[in-house]
Amino acid sequence: MNGAESLARTLLKSGVDTCFANPGTSELHFVSALDAAPGMHCVLTLFEGVATGCADGYGRLADKPAVTLMHCGPGLANGLANLHNARRACAPVVNIVGDQATYHRPLDSNLTADTEGWARPVSAWVRTSSAASGVGFDAAAAVQAARTAPGQIATLILPADTAWGEGGIVAEPQAAPPFPEAAPHTIRQIAQLLRSGEPAMLFLSRMALRARGLEAAYRIAEATGARLMAQQANSRIERGQGRVPIQCLPYAVPDAMAALAGIRHLILVGAQRPVAIFAYPNQPSHLTPPDATTHVLARLDQNPVHALESLADELGAPPAPPPHPGPVPGPASGALQAGAIAQTLAALMPEQTVVVDESVSFGRPFYPGTRFAPPHDWLQNTGSSIGMGLPVATGAAFAAPGRRVIALQADGSALYTVQALWTQAQARLDVTTLLLANRKYAILSSELANVGAQPGPVFQSLTDLRNPDLDWIKIANGMGVEAARACTCEQLADLLRHSLGRKGPFLIELLI
Amino acid sequence: MNGAESLARTLLKSGVDTCFANPGTSELHFVSALDAAPGMHCVLTLFEGVATGCADGYGRLADKPAVTLMHCGPGLANGLANLHNARRACAPVVNIVGDQATYHRPLDSNLTADTEGWARPVSAWVRTSSAASGVGFDAAAAVQAARTAPGQIATLILPADTAWGEGGIVAEPQAAPPFPEAAPHTIRQIAQLLRSGEPAMLFLSRMALRARGLEAAYRIAEATGARLMAQQANSRIERGQGRVPIQCLPYAVPDAMAALAGIRHLILVGAQRPVAIFAYPNQPSHLTPPDATTHVLARLDQNPVHALESLADELGAPPAPPPHPGPVPGPASGALQAGAIAQTLAALMPEQTVVVDESVSFGRPFYPGTRFAPPHDWLQNTGSSIGMGLPVATGAAFAAPGRRVIALQADGSALYTVQALWTQAQARLDVTTLLLANRKYAILSSELANVGAQPGPVFQSLTDLRNPDLDWIKIANGMGVEAARACTCEQLADLLRHSLGRKGPFLIELLI
Repeated sequence: MNGAESLARTLLKSGVDTCFANPGTSELHFVSALDAAPGMHCVLTLFEGVATGCADGYGRLADKPAVTLMHCGPGLANGLANLHNARRACAPVVNIVGDQATYHRPLDSNLTADTEGWARPVSAWVRTSSAASGVGFDAAAAVQAARTAPGQIATLILPADTAWGEGGIVAEPQAAPPFPEAAPHTIRQIAQLLRSGEPAMLFLSRMALRARGLEAAYRIAEATGARLMAQQANSRIERGQGRVPIQCLPYAVPDAMAALAGIRHLILVGAQRPVAIFAYPNQPSHLTPPDATTHVLARLDQNPVHALESLADELGAPPAPPPHPGPVPGPASGALQAGAIAQTLAALMPEQTVVVDESVSFGRPFYPGTRFAPPHDWLQNTGSSIGMGLPVATGAAFAAPGRRVIALQADGSALYTVQALWTQAQARLDVTTLLLANRKYAILSSELANVGAQPGPVFQSLTDLRNPDLDWIKIANGMGVEAARACTCEQLADLLRHSLGRKGPFLIELLI
Repeated sequence: MNGAESLARTLLKSGVDTCFANPGTSELHFVSALDAAPGMHCVLTLFEGVATGCADGYGRLADKPAVTLMHCGPGLANGLANLHNARRACAPVVNIVGDQATYHRPLDSNLTADTEGWARPVSAWVRTSSAASGVGFDAAAAVQAARTAPGQIATLILPADTAWGEGGIVAEPQAAPPFPEAAPHTIRQIAQLLRSGEPAMLFLSRMALRARGLEAAYRIAEATGARLMAQQANSRIERGQGRVPIQCLPYAVPDAMAALAGIRHLILVGAQRPVAIFAYPNQPSHLTPPDATTHVLARLDQNPVHALESLADELGAPPAPPPHPGPVPGPASGALQAGAIAQTLAALMPEQTVVVDESVSFGRPFYPGTRFAPPHDWLQNTGSSIGMGLPVATGAAFAAPGRRVIALQADGSALYTVQALWTQAQARLDVTTLLLANRKYAILSSELANVGAQPGPVFQSLTDLRNPDLDWIKIANGMGVEAARACTCEQLADLLRHSLGRKGPFLIELLI
């Protein structure tokens, strides 16, 4: 057995069965091994940024890693931006990066690059296999690293000769270490603090935003008056009818500060301290009030659900059914305002929809405006690197067959990884994309004011996606995805019903 | 004056006047500065891989750097693959990467990444500005580094507060150091060796492949019987009618070894030792015959044109007019075979065309098949990272207004940076793309055999771009570029004539 086959069999034995791949020469033995060791669901993506974004979406939905397959340093480089987002989402991902043979690398052929150097900033775990006999063990360790809570990026670099060399050994799966729990005295301290009655907020992210974590948080909130809030961008929020509603911290600094105003105690639950994504002149970087104290209930590497449930129990907080948000309004009519789009979406989305939100500035009302919708999952851009929406939606669809995926997708961001549409078409995935065509990098207009810079002709020209207009119907059709255009909410509702009633992907271009 | 304005003015003063940009929040002060300090030709690209590929193409044609403008670590990451290619081309490029404010970076907001770490492997020079007062000097040093022969990548990282901070100083241009010359005794030694009459080859790359370098090389070849050969992939070859013809080292190992067979002395002229791009089991990595000796006339960082001219003079080699290649055959007819496409192209391309060749495996006959064409430049994929063709063609068109650019573009590679088409349309660039649609990653079929791996269903599925077919007419139209399909050489000729007779970009999809 060669190293490549030991890799394929070890991955399968470790429970990894989905591979988003964009292979080149140095990966062909691994591809061949996947033929020899069947069981891996292999998905071709036509750009590495699609592969890594797919793995992010898959990891967020499946709570286990998919594997990516990428070609040498530059192939990995193409996937880095979405690995940055995946890292911020704590999505479990195993990257396999084929590379030059160990003895060939020193010759510095033109496709030789610093693969390890590029992998390290996004990877919690990086290893370059040195011999075929070690590849199986390296693979088991990579899966273990990816599965280590709260979810990590593991990158295994596979020199071609370690793939084709004989002596491969299938390794036993390595269990991930248990998710560390918050110390009992921390639970008691936070409980005591909440009993004080001073204005407090639980600031949540990651697993705390699944239904179970939110239920425990809601018990605490009901029992103590503490407020709940989610980070600005989160890997996955379980929400909608019957779920605990939760607001996300607004993007704009003044709005975020207003949302946190009056808080005396900010309690982090698997979340980072709230800071602005960017610094702005004359605005603070820290968003919490100056007189607020920050406490940590659960660090990022501690189990937030256990911490919340322990805290609720410590407080003696009774079960608290989530409030009924009221009936779902019907689809909106008229112009494609953001609120009206959200209302239409909420009215029509099926239960268990997976919403992938890369709607950027236009779509800020989408999240609050869909709180009435049937139970669904909401996935956000956790790393602020654009181009995550279409790939994450694609990967989520592979992880959640039978569920509809709806991508709320800004046009400028969509173009970054537009190749994802082809993979959606090829696999006939149930992905409906609402392509929000405002034909500009709209967020930069407000950001220009925020940073205190002046607009002028250069600014206009560098944020304007017109002349020519991108025609998303043609682009989608060119990639094999059916598409249509909506200019009113009635048209949007008709097209949404059409798309949701059939298999396969569909793109609706909204001229906003 | 703030740091951003000192940056803009220093770049202009240093002779850098073209910027390929894809800005975000942290770059807005620089964008604003470009409005305040006019003179920079700013080009919006819709993906950073397009911006860096444009800068590569621009640098190869203009022999001076353009500047890219990218957004934080992940934005740079999107541009790395084409910077890898640019580095291998020795194209001069200045990257400006906006980043988190110095005081904001430690807070690790979600768009914080290891920008320097990602920049370093592709950059000969990396610096992160630390204060507004230093930005101008940093910019002058970046341009100097980029202009340092044979051409380098310089990356200047600009924390947002160094852009908006006051105290900016416009720096004086810094002259690039002189291009070092080969030592006289090296010239004499190589001359002596060539006089021996033993089979020798001058192995050329980079500036040695411009007309002047080739003319000197040809004098040497005519005087001594030495053979001439270019590296497998080169930044820019000046060729066609009236120019010295030169073969490129074949890609496939057996073909490359055959091309070098019988050589006793391989003389490197700004070229690297010929090695296979990948290792293959049971094939050598080094391509020169075992009994051949390798000599260095000019290192990569030495002036190859000076070395060739000095060597020709040392040998007393008389001027040698290049051989007449014979009349240009007319356009071919019938099926779209690679040789027939080349013949048609050679017959119809105007003088001073810039050909950008990312035709990968199908297009191997294109280069030899166009040796009869009018004088033109031929640009190749120097780093073997796919996705360079459309952006390099776009950047070359900006550098060479009035000249037609023809991109010979494989379909799988084209999709990597397809967003370049929009920039071509927006600027109405005279770029004609021959989109070679074989609907597969065809090179991997031969590579599979080369590495000794077995084909199977997984291999088939991971190299097949069908189901659905990519429709390049729709994709191009969707990006604003007119397009049409050719199934025969007659149709190709008609469409080529149509495209060459008008302004603006055009895409011809060749079903091959």
